[in-house]
Amino acid sequence: MIKFLKYNWQVRDEWFDWCEQLTLEELLKTRVGGVGSILYTLFHIIDVEYSWVRGIQGKGDLVIHFENYKTPEKLKSLSDEFRKDINDFLETNLDDLKGKVVTVPWDDEAYTADEIVHHIVAHEIHHIGQLSIWSRELGLKPPSANFIGRNIT
Amino acid sequence: MIKFLKYNWQVRDEWFDWCEQLTLEELLKTRVGGVGSILYTLFHIIDVEYSWVRGIQGKGDLVIHFENYKTPEKLKSLSDEFRKDINDFLETNLDDLKGKVVTVPWDDEAYTADEIVHHIVAHEIHHIGQLSIWSRELGLKPPSANFIGRNIT
Repeated sequence: MIKFLKYNWQVRDEWFDWCEQLTLEELLKTRVGGVGSILYTLFHIIDVEYSWVRGIQGKGDLVIHFENYKTPEKLKSLSDEFRKDINDFLETNLDDLKGKVVTVPWDDEAYTADEIVHHIVAHEIHHIGQLSIWSRELGLKPPSANFIGRNIT
Repeated sequence: MIKFLKYNWQVRDEWFDWCEQLTLEELLKTRVGGVGSILYTLFHIIDVEYSWVRGIQGKGDLVIHFENYKTPEKLKSLSDEFRKDINDFLETNLDDLKGKVVTVPWDDEAYTADEIVHHIVAHEIHHIGQLSIWSRELGLKPPSANFIGRNIT
């Protein structure tokens, strides 16, 4: 699963680079479907990933305010910061934790850590698929979503 | 990985159900981004998945013509037929085959079976994300993409 997370992080960084060709207004514009704007989608991906990983760690939920991260640069810094934590934690612990039953404050159900990591992975890929449509609607080529042909380290 | 494939198949079936509320004209209409139409996206997902699995099996590529499957019903039958093969094969063999190096006629590179299965999984989730935007653009609620909260068997 860590390979999938690393794939997602690589693709996410390519989307941060892709953002550079757009104005902040375009990045924050409300679009049809998904969670709204391009930048809010990236924020949402980062927020959801980190919240669930903290859930697996048994840590309390951290409320992050989009208001404080409304540029690609600020969001990329947040993404880098969280990613380091997540990578260190999951690379060391995920195999042992797979069966751990996790409950979180924002969901009534309990899930295993393994289910949650599957959820995180699918969640990001799904939202990136949405960004790719908005990209084409803007007349722009989206970053590739191919898993193969990448050097995932 | 088989859990991810089963998730994809469950979501795909929900999209086939979702298709029932649209006319064939809407389903075949060329849209911006992705691979074109809603129905062609579903065909493409099925085609790519089966082609790569046949590649892992060392079988030759099977050319499937979209012309023969241009209704949700025909496409769903194709999906069901292939899925049975894929599930039987991967459930039995994937663990042993992960490191197998695979070459296919449509790609110059060689990949491990494990990379290919990752690719198949991400490929479908990405395209489903695209469908979800088109769904909202049509004023329709898309099927959920959540991995958690499903009964995946």
